[in-house]
Amino acid sequence: MVLRLSSLFLRTLREDPAEAEVASHKLLLRAGYIRRAAPGIYTWLPLGLRVLRKVEEIIREEMTSIGAQEVHFPALLPKEPYEVTNRWTEYGDGIFRLKDRKGADYLLAPTHEEMFTLLVKDLYGSYKDLPLSIYQIQNKYRDEARPRAGLLRGREFIMKDSYSFDIDDDGLEASYQAHRGAYLRIFERLGLDIVPVAATAGAMGGSKSEEFLHPTAIGEDTFVRSAGGYAANVEAVSTVPPAEIDYSMAPAARVLDTPATPTIATLVQSANTIAPRGSDVWTAADTLKNVVLAVDLPTGERQIVVVGLPGDRAVDLKRIEANIGSYLPMAGEIGVEAANEEDLKKHALLVKGYIGPGLSLDAAVLGSEGASKLLYLVDPRVVSGTSWITGANESGKHVFGLIAGRDFGWDGTIEAVEVRAGDEAPDGSGPLEAARGIEMGHIFQLGRKYAQALDLKVLDRNGKLAVVTMGSYGVGVTRAVAALAESNHDDKGLCWPRSVAPADVHIVAVGRGEEIFAAAQKLADDFEAAGLEVIYDDRPKVSPGVKFSDAELIGVPTILAVGRGLVDGVVEIKDRATGEAENIAVGDAVQYVLSTAGR
Amino acid sequence: MVLRLSSLFLRTLREDPAEAEVASHKLLLRAGYIRRAAPGIYTWLPLGLRVLRKVEEIIREEMTSIGAQEVHFPALLPKEPYEVTNRWTEYGDGIFRLKDRKGADYLLAPTHEEMFTLLVKDLYGSYKDLPLSIYQIQNKYRDEARPRAGLLRGREFIMKDSYSFDIDDDGLEASYQAHRGAYLRIFERLGLDIVPVAATAGAMGGSKSEEFLHPTAIGEDTFVRSAGGYAANVEAVSTVPPAEIDYSMAPAARVLDTPATPTIATLVQSANTIAPRGSDVWTAADTLKNVVLAVDLPTGERQIVVVGLPGDRAVDLKRIEANIGSYLPMAGEIGVEAANEEDLKKHALLVKGYIGPGLSLDAAVLGSEGASKLLYLVDPRVVSGTSWITGANESGKHVFGLIAGRDFGWDGTIEAVEVRAGDEAPDGSGPLEAARGIEMGHIFQLGRKYAQALDLKVLDRNGKLAVVTMGSYGVGVTRAVAALAESNHDDKGLCWPRSVAPADVHIVAVGRGEEIFAAAQKLADDFEAAGLEVIYDDRPKVSPGVKFSDAELIGVPTILAVGRGLVDGVVEIKDRATGEAENIAVGDAVQYVLSTAGR
Repeated sequence: MVLRLSSLFLRTLREDPAEAEVASHKLLLRAGYIRRAAPGIYTWLPLGLRVLRKVEEIIREEMTSIGAQEVHFPALLPKEPYEVTNRWTEYGDGIFRLKDRKGADYLLAPTHEEMFTLLVKDLYGSYKDLPLSIYQIQNKYRDEARPRAGLLRGREFIMKDSYSFDIDDDGLEASYQAHRGAYLRIFERLGLDIVPVAATAGAMGGSKSEEFLHPTAIGEDTFVRSAGGYAANVEAVSTVPPAEIDYSMAPAARVLDTPATPTIATLVQSANTIAPRGSDVWTAADTLKNVVLAVDLPTGERQIVVVGLPGDRAVDLKRIEANIGSYLPMAGEIGVEAANEEDLKKHALLVKGYIGPGLSLDAAVLGSEGASKLLYLVDPRVVSGTSWITGANESGKHVFGLIAGRDFGWDGTIEAVEVRAGDEAPDGSGPLEAARGIEMGHIFQLGRKYAQALDLKVLDRNGKLAVVTMGSYGVGVTRAVAALAESNHDDKGLCWPRSVAPADVHIVAVGRGEEIFAAAQKLADDFEAAGLEVIYDDRPKVSPGVKFSDAELIGVPTILAVGRGLVDGVVEIKDRATGEAENIAVGDAVQYVLSTAGR
Repeated sequence: MVLRLSSLFLRTLREDPAEAEVASHKLLLRAGYIRRAAPGIYTWLPLGLRVLRKVEEIIREEMTSIGAQEVHFPALLPKEPYEVTNRWTEYGDGIFRLKDRKGADYLLAPTHEEMFTLLVKDLYGSYKDLPLSIYQIQNKYRDEARPRAGLLRGREFIMKDSYSFDIDDDGLEASYQAHRGAYLRIFERLGLDIVPVAATAGAMGGSKSEEFLHPTAIGEDTFVRSAGGYAANVEAVSTVPPAEIDYSMAPAARVLDTPATPTIATLVQSANTIAPRGSDVWTAADTLKNVVLAVDLPTGERQIVVVGLPGDRAVDLKRIEANIGSYLPMAGEIGVEAANEEDLKKHALLVKGYIGPGLSLDAAVLGSEGASKLLYLVDPRVVSGTSWITGANESGKHVFGLIAGRDFGWDGTIEAVEVRAGDEAPDGSGPLEAARGIEMGHIFQLGRKYAQALDLKVLDRNGKLAVVTMGSYGVGVTRAVAALAESNHDDKGLCWPRSVAPADVHIVAVGRGEEIFAAAQKLADDFEAAGLEVIYDDRPKVSPGVKFSDAELIGVPTILAVGRGLVDGVVEIKDRATGEAENIAVGDAVQYVLSTAGR
């Protein structure tokens, strides 16, 4: 069916809409692909829906190719399964909740782990039924605090989510790798540049996890990569600890008066004044900064934790959030923030600006074994034998030459500091650089968390009940449309990759002669007959300028102009992305575009 | 892709699930097409999703064939547009409402008139842009008081809803007829028997309206039809009024004592005792029953209305609800119920059991001009010259021989009585009979109601702003799956029409020999290559009995058994619906099924 612009439900806009900030959002609105219905909630117009369906179909084909089977869950779900896993509470304000007429609680599902787990429990009961991968392409809902950038971060959006079910860890690894391969093929077919980065699993639980990031300056996710090929989510970067230092010859620590030095900067200045080290001046890197944090636990309780890190480093709360889980009394969604005055008041041993681990192992202040009983975690750079200037737990006093392992201990290490450009990649592949990206996909080895919580067990080879191990795999479908638009446009408009373009060729009838419209119509029919999708600008009273600018705005890969050249038997065929144009004989046009399209 | 039962995500059930009452619901659960997630909310399993997609695709093709263009609206919508049309309030408990994290009101849309209207207003501005028909296939939500019969009446369900936009009434009529034609083709292609019935527009407003009912004993909608071809929703049946009677010779009415006759039965008995008419005894049809009703208006106010009808007829509140709109001070969703004691207390002139219109035109009690000021509507059978026994507005007294038009008047007529089998069809095509059906589709001429409320105007031929006129057209997509299952099953299971079946042929390998599985596999591949969809029961250790009963339960139109006959070079091909089986040479099997399938 040729899409005729005389009747296509479309209105292009000359001006950028005020509501849009990023290019993809502006262009998808201007070119008539989407319209906003509410913050973070969009309506799909005919052209947009065509692109969306093509993205979905590519995903569907690759899911089928790894044997995943499609199902479809409701978006409106009862509270109960989400209560069993505690996510009803953990999601906090992040989900939409509602009650039905009988007062029963429901949510609009942000993700469907619980329902998939229960469905498999309902249908299957034996290891012989596994492995199983099932997926859906479905509307998801999240009550984002700041919906952003059009389709990039919406409140109603489409995801492909799949789940694998295996009897053992090897099976899970195989299912995970199958999905990983499918994801790489999906993004390649979509024409979307992707960097798979190591990630932490965060609130989803589980162990192994990778994100598929599309590098772009407008991305919300920061990641790091090395020239040698390492790439990771900032939360997932691990620090290579320096070698331990023999401290047998180190002098004893000494407490010095450092009045009015509550900050690292004032402390360093004071240290160089009262205890100069010659040419090797003290720097912030010689100080051990002890930061008091408050962790909001899933139970609603608030736990105070102290983190020790080199004074030249900044705290990264997101990294701490992602990595502190194993030190807490329970799993679940947590929040980490700087402790406030009220928190500090409850712990009289903490002297603001002068907090330290204590002057000796026997006189420990920080740490669960110390006088404060507060959990004390340190950056991996704090290894046995390193020497520090740090707080002496008295106002106006610091201790110099406090030796890690000799004078103080800790409950564990944690990735707590901001990763900096130039830090070494953990695999030795060179210095890291920072980059930004959009999270297009995420694959997790969930393990047995959900199966355990919801009692998904099957009979194993020995006839015993065994908990199933699961993987969870997501692709942002609406987000992929936005990312494709973001990375495929120029000043004039969109330039879709052919695999997702709303059509293959956009025919423009230029001029007013009947023979032009007749020839354009015939070409449109010929292209259709050859299996290509056609937009035909058949508007009789619209100027060539408007027609061409609409064609460039809409961004179909091939633009074909039927105009003055027709008397010489030629039409102009232009590549939208490169701008290269050629005159081609009318009779060769279909074959020319077919070969351009690689068909 | 051949669907292999060894890996298909499926579990058939031998027993009927306790939750299901109607056949379609039981069988869709037992054959592994759907699972319940919550009351009225279902999950689609792989086989169910295949049927659903085929139904959707047929609808999509027929929408495309009339030039309708597909769009897609969100399900989660802001309150504001629904406030403009007052439907936010009118829907009452029937919709799901929620608040976002900022406290803004949202709903899960039950239908999208407002959004379509606003979208066209956003994009279009001239009569030249019209006519336009746009549609979506999308999740809808209704908080049904009693979700019922599986997919037949759900709370999350899929509808195709389209809307037409025209500059004038002729355009609307053409768009309406185009949709009507498309709907007839859709139901024919689905293999679903349909009766189009005249309907009232109800809460949707507008004028012309038809429902497409699928006749079935388990249907929730009652309709009537005549042997001569008339069919209508009960609410929409119009009564042919009898001829008026010349009352110039009629005797004067007289009031008689009829003590203790508050009901029609006691009144008839009393009349035959105190004022016998010889052999022509009084019956309930000679009495005029005046029923006091309370109408809950959209504003929340309660208006009292009296309806007069022959005493042998019962009141039908739904018919009154559907037809009383034009007598009320405003449009909108209303509720009609019998007036309660409290209502009656406020109207001292109404003497319960003895209510009448008054003894003469000058002494009228009922009617907006009468002493009570209450709106008085009568059944169309009450025509000028008809003579009645009715209440005298005094306890224990009735008036005999009160002549309509001479002694009393009314504010208007209304279809107020239950339609009975045997009533005449309004088009003279014979007596009516009652039937039950499921509403599969509904088409409305909405007119200008929504366009007016939301200010959708375009420039007309004369350059003046004109309000657009709209049509609204719905098909229940999930409901169609249920109706198809309901009407295509037998004791053994489902028998899908080929147009929507999850596959064309279900191959069963019977026995244990390798050659059987090899031959079955080859046939499966051959069928696929010929463009047919195949389910292949390749389970090695399942008995032939279980395999056949699963095949019959699943209900693919053609069942092909590869078994003992293979040594003679034949397979058995069975028609699932008729049960007819034939032995066909292996080499002819594909061609045989192709011709059965009409391809």
